[in-house]
Amino acid sequence: MAEYNFIQLAKNAKSASKKLAVLSTDIKNKALLAIAEAIEFNKTKIFEANTIDLELAKDNIPQSVYNRLKLDENKMRDMIQGIVDVYELEDPIGKILMQRTLDTGLILTKKSCPIGVLGIIFEARPDVISQISALAIKSSNAVILKGGKESANTNKAIMEIIQAALTKVEGFPQNVLTQVFSRDDVKEMLEQDKYIDLIIPRGGNSLVQFVKENTKIPVLGHADGICHIFIDESADLEKSKRIIIDAKTQYPSACNAVETLLVHEDFSAKDELFNSLKEAIEHINEFSSGHTDAIITEDREIASEFLSAVDSAGVYHNASTRFADGFRYGFGAEVGISTNKTHARGPVGLEGLTIYKYLLQGSGDIVKDYVEGYKKFNHKDLI
Amino acid sequence: MAEYNFIQLAKNAKSASKKLAVLSTDIKNKALLAIAEAIEFNKTKIFEANTIDLELAKDNIPQSVYNRLKLDENKMRDMIQGIVDVYELEDPIGKILMQRTLDTGLILTKKSCPIGVLGIIFEARPDVISQISALAIKSSNAVILKGGKESANTNKAIMEIIQAALTKVEGFPQNVLTQVFSRDDVKEMLEQDKYIDLIIPRGGNSLVQFVKENTKIPVLGHADGICHIFIDESADLEKSKRIIIDAKTQYPSACNAVETLLVHEDFSAKDELFNSLKEAIEHINEFSSGHTDAIITEDREIASEFLSAVDSAGVYHNASTRFADGFRYGFGAEVGISTNKTHARGPVGLEGLTIYKYLLQGSGDIVKDYVEGYKKFNHKDLI
Repeated sequence: MAEYNFIQLAKNAKSASKKLAVLSTDIKNKALLAIAEAIEFNKTKIFEANTIDLELAKDNIPQSVYNRLKLDENKMRDMIQGIVDVYELEDPIGKILMQRTLDTGLILTKKSCPIGVLGIIFEARPDVISQISALAIKSSNAVILKGGKESANTNKAIMEIIQAALTKVEGFPQNVLTQVFSRDDVKEMLEQDKYIDLIIPRGGNSLVQFVKENTKIPVLGHADGICHIFIDESADLEKSKRIIIDAKTQYPSACNAVETLLVHEDFSAKDELFNSLKEAIEHINEFSSGHTDAIITEDREIASEFLSAVDSAGVYHNASTRFADGFRYGFGAEVGISTNKTHARGPVGLEGLTIYKYLLQGSGDIVKDYVEGYKKFNHKDLI
Repeated sequence: MAEYNFIQLAKNAKSASKKLAVLSTDIKNKALLAIAEAIEFNKTKIFEANTIDLELAKDNIPQSVYNRLKLDENKMRDMIQGIVDVYELEDPIGKILMQRTLDTGLILTKKSCPIGVLGIIFEARPDVISQISALAIKSSNAVILKGGKESANTNKAIMEIIQAALTKVEGFPQNVLTQVFSRDDVKEMLEQDKYIDLIIPRGGNSLVQFVKENTKIPVLGHADGICHIFIDESADLEKSKRIIIDAKTQYPSACNAVETLLVHEDFSAKDELFNSLKEAIEHINEFSSGHTDAIITEDREIASEFLSAVDSAGVYHNASTRFADGFRYGFGAEVGISTNKTHARGPVGLEGLTIYKYLLQGSGDIVKDYVEGYKKFNHKDLI
């Protein structure tokens, strides 16, 4: 039985999100540095907790999950560096995205703002906690995290260290980060559309599908990649080899590793796989998961047609599909890679955790004047 | 029984969306002008169909629905002008939103693209068809429309005129616009997450809630407005009167009309409603539907605090809530007003019907080189 009331946690998170929304960049950045330092200082504690998790899980999980669960010095360094990277990124909140006069003295401003409360459901990787926490803080979103049970001890240790660091940051509100542990919490999380504004499931397809089927809350889905490479007639053999080997073998369990190779019939004497660009595009648009698909060709026109017509989050020309990643794109850190067609697509960094609102500033302006023709809109962009 | 197979319609729409995605601005604009001309030329037919609907419905619907159902010369003029307005707007597709080198010769481009297939469910207003059709064509999205049964004849007449006009536009693909009529179609529409990318319900809260509860497809929800005006201590009495009368009476059944008036205790001698800005903000954040909320005050600091802290799609200072509208914001036409916290918020115009994809152009680049330290990312913004 959970020792807490989920609805109360969600309410507290919502209330924290209102305070976060108006928090200064300076306090947010202080919080990020405090977290990075605390993790560095307490990493032995984290490794100890991780060892317990690894011991408990080792006979019950496949090697690939074990690898994701296991923290080592490299992953720890990346975790800390990831927080520092987010610290260094520009504050995505309060940016003026558009400003125009509707009429003289009646000014409309579109300003970026946080989404509110995020619900994150993730599987075995404990390094997700610090990454998501950092992105949430910088983007002024409160977050409720539910990790996999295999990493419960590690998750708990990391979150305790983060929370202890945050309490020492003057002006930083309480309840910004909340961790829950039970399976029932997932069910409750999916029901709280009054308090939670976005659910981000980070895991396999079955998790994403389960979440989408069981909530009214918008879902930023990260489905597995079914990535294609199409070797066009004019492809360079050496480039093709390099790219295919990298895309398939550099880290085969990643979602951006390639699954399907399509070869133009005039490239290979052996197989008749695909005899035209059009067929390859149609095949990819039918069977790809919309993650990342690439063409290898020396023909620029063919490449350009492929990039236009393939409807995937990433469309690549003469580059490995493994580049599909928030760090590699220069986003600092990533929340996940979205195969959604709305809100955010591809690697999602800070910007994907923001939305906007419209500010209208007038001096007693009323709509009647415009409807009855006494006044006319002028719609002049100021920015 | 429906005379068509919904899944086949949805597949056809998906297939049309791929052709639309690469269609030139020129052909899209020709299609828009053709539609505007055809509606102008055939308006008598539309009025006739509308008369039949009005006759059939008049004893069974409330006056407000009757008013929305009834087309007159003014609404017809607005319908046609709405299409011309969309014609005049910039093409939102193919815009370069960001471009950077990841390394020398490895260029990442973020480009706007259509969402794909939209499912629109709307109630009594037949003028929605031309508006949505125009916005969908300009933003290269295919659309499946399901209107209310009260306006079935009018809807059918308008769609037939639009379809006939489109067949004459050279190069314009088939199946871009599809209309369905039965209640079962709504159920089927909500199930087709393979073919439909976004559902937009335009109607009351119960419709929006029903849709959200019954689909995995992302929903661009347009909930009813529960709009507030807070009269601060320093509010100007004349401005307050003007704004409140406009916000409440100029068109009371609109979603941006005001519902709740909060008055600072020092403004009114009579009531103690709210004795501080903070209380008013808390009340609004708790009870507003997040549509549009306004403050009337002569104090700029108080106004600025209100605009930052109120978490609604529109936050107004000394202006009527009735300004919350795509036309008034200068968006040309609107798909609806979103109270979502993701994807699009507030009045949604063309931009809300787009997403983006990432193009990566290299010359044989592989991730291994970066992971193993032979190469380093440089992340230099080009735009």
